[in-house]
Amino acid sequence: MAAAFSCPVFLPSTFSYNGNRYHGRIKIKINATSSTKVKTLNEIAGAGKGSSSLATSTEIGHLSQEQIRQRIPTKKQLVDPYRQGLIIERGVGYRQTVVVRSYEVGPYKTATLESLLNLFQETALNHVWMSGLLSNGFGATHGMVRNNLIWVVSRMQVQVDHYPIWGEVLEIDTWVGASGKNGMRRDWLIRSQATGITYARATSTWVMMNEKTRRLSKMPEEVRDEISPWFIDKRAINEDVPEKIVKLDDNARYVNSDLKPKRSDLDMNHHVNNVKYVRWMLETIPDKFLESHQLSGIVLEYRRECGSSDRVQSLCQPDEDETLTNGVEQSLLKNMILTPGIMEGNGYLGPLDVKSYGYTHLLQIKGDSKNEEIVRGRTRWRKKLSTLPYSS
Amino acid sequence: MAAAFSCPVFLPSTFSYNGNRYHGRIKIKINATSSTKVKTLNEIAGAGKGSSSLATSTEIGHLSQEQIRQRIPTKKQLVDPYRQGLIIERGVGYRQTVVVRSYEVGPYKTATLESLLNLFQETALNHVWMSGLLSNGFGATHGMVRNNLIWVVSRMQVQVDHYPIWGEVLEIDTWVGASGKNGMRRDWLIRSQATGITYARATSTWVMMNEKTRRLSKMPEEVRDEISPWFIDKRAINEDVPEKIVKLDDNARYVNSDLKPKRSDLDMNHHVNNVKYVRWMLETIPDKFLESHQLSGIVLEYRRECGSSDRVQSLCQPDEDETLTNGVEQSLLKNMILTPGIMEGNGYLGPLDVKSYGYTHLLQIKGDSKNEEIVRGRTRWRKKLSTLPYSS
Repeated sequence: MAAAFSCPVFLPSTFSYNGNRYHGRIKIKINATSSTKVKTLNEIAGAGKGSSSLATSTEIGHLSQEQIRQRIPTKKQLVDPYRQGLIIERGVGYRQTVVVRSYEVGPYKTATLESLLNLFQETALNHVWMSGLLSNGFGATHGMVRNNLIWVVSRMQVQVDHYPIWGEVLEIDTWVGASGKNGMRRDWLIRSQATGITYARATSTWVMMNEKTRRLSKMPEEVRDEISPWFIDKRAINEDVPEKIVKLDDNARYVNSDLKPKRSDLDMNHHVNNVKYVRWMLETIPDKFLESHQLSGIVLEYRRECGSSDRVQSLCQPDEDETLTNGVEQSLLKNMILTPGIMEGNGYLGPLDVKSYGYTHLLQIKGDSKNEEIVRGRTRWRKKLSTLPYSS
Repeated sequence: MAAAFSCPVFLPSTFSYNGNRYHGRIKIKINATSSTKVKTLNEIAGAGKGSSSLATSTEIGHLSQEQIRQRIPTKKQLVDPYRQGLIIERGVGYRQTVVVRSYEVGPYKTATLESLLNLFQETALNHVWMSGLLSNGFGATHGMVRNNLIWVVSRMQVQVDHYPIWGEVLEIDTWVGASGKNGMRRDWLIRSQATGITYARATSTWVMMNEKTRRLSKMPEEVRDEISPWFIDKRAINEDVPEKIVKLDDNARYVNSDLKPKRSDLDMNHHVNNVKYVRWMLETIPDKFLESHQLSGIVLEYRRECGSSDRVQSLCQPDEDETLTNGVEQSLLKNMILTPGIMEGNGYLGPLDVKSYGYTHLLQIKGDSKNEEIVRGRTRWRKKLSTLPYSS
């Protein structure tokens, strides 16, 4: 059970924003003055549709307006008609049907990497939502809240064989597994609903951090008891040895400095969302390359958080030549692309003979005396065969 | 029936991007080399689920892969289970149920204005989708495509009484009506599914442009015959006389220059999406004001398109004092906020006595000899009573 992409490991700052720390149990305050007409909770509940058992005046006294509006389940649900979610895999995996929306696609009507990352985050949170374990936070369980623990992501890997197009119906499966003694893995598969073909796969690693001390934490027994029944021993991406990502320095070929987080970059955890990190990374790659290539895979290693007042530098370096790509990078290439048949439903458009190009990335906070790493990354690219709409 | 927010009137440039014009009938090219295993359309169709009548090998010969993946209806549909859409209003209005997703909310767990604008765009397109009139374009009907016509938006007005929160289930209604002889109005209402309370309302005005000559066009009879049966004489916002928005000049209080469209700002129509325009406008308002105020309404008047290579300047000017707000602006204020009871379901949190603050906006392309207007705007704001999560 996991959630926030936006909380990297080794988070040094607090979760405060404008001096207001997030408190999960704050009730909604209605925007009212003495002379404004404000409906009471009972009046609001009375206006509700009959379909909700919450909307009865006898129950309403115990519920905050926030609870009425969110309706987070307190028990495991097998189906959520609104989210089009379903518990699968003998009761512990989650599948959600989504339609690629018009604003989730780029100029070529294909879903952007950002949209896929957003959908991963969304389905992860909805998985926890369905489990009945979601407490008031960003994917934290009740046991985690009792222990002041939050999830922080340490690594994320995505492999895209084929980009979904506008209006396409997708099935996204997600599940969790153990990662060492105190960590958790969360995986995803994106499939075409019409054809069953797998379009993308992803895996991520999560650890727990004490929200107050800002230190990494062991997984308390209480939390292990909550989440371990949901663990599945199955992998979306088979990766024997995670590739080490070299740290770039000032000699990197492309540098984009003075990137500033904006208000709209902050998510509900008051962080710069990790999707924004990816945007900063990709924007540093020259337009000429981006026009003729398509991202086939990305690995991200999170080091620390980016605060809203930080000034960020994005560095990237293309792989020098094919000797390098075919040598040092071969194992990464193999892990990221040449893994057909791990999961059912693949084998489509296998890019076995498609030449792959690599970039190494670094986002860092530029300090006076030293720089602080935010995230290291590796991206893999394949040449576009066509730049026409719907081309892959 | 309408769609693209991103195509303003008086669009001077072509719809090309990197030299590739959009061609609606291009078939997908599969990313394959001679030695790559590529499934045929029949193989792909054979892997499909039984639920789709498209996925039969007898029919498949007539369909492109794009058609299989998008499945745009050719006849009017009354229900779309994937989009959770429904035809209402005696067969001509559209209602879609949506859940506010984790990445659609900002730091206070409330949906952002950008997310609401995105959902307006999405439901408008899905309305056309359901009608069976959607041709291969961005909301254009078959008759429009035959006449090389596209929709361009000339005006957009949104009023937000209350922001939805993360996980909240919403019902979005949208419908179209006549606007003069050659134009169309599209309206929206956003309601809480749990309580029936109206959270937001919007209206927009659209005209037709010839895609080749780049000139505004009369509505051909053929197109009027397609869309006029869908017109409803009902308004989400009752506005007797649209307020004139003054044009700002270099004396504006706040100026943000050298804004550059990025690749990720382009939508599938190869334009800077109008949601991005709104972001540029709002980012020019000082942080201190944004921290303590919440947007209650916005009016946008589109003048011309912003190309991907343009450098944009955002100007804004707060209303000088309350004399102004209570005088000249009173009618705008009245139109935008003080219209309870126009539609059913309102009356909640009516901000009758809440003080309102106004800003005037201008986005323009800064030229050597003269500047070119992209969009003029007016925003209305109310003071936040609390900056805690879920506060309104």
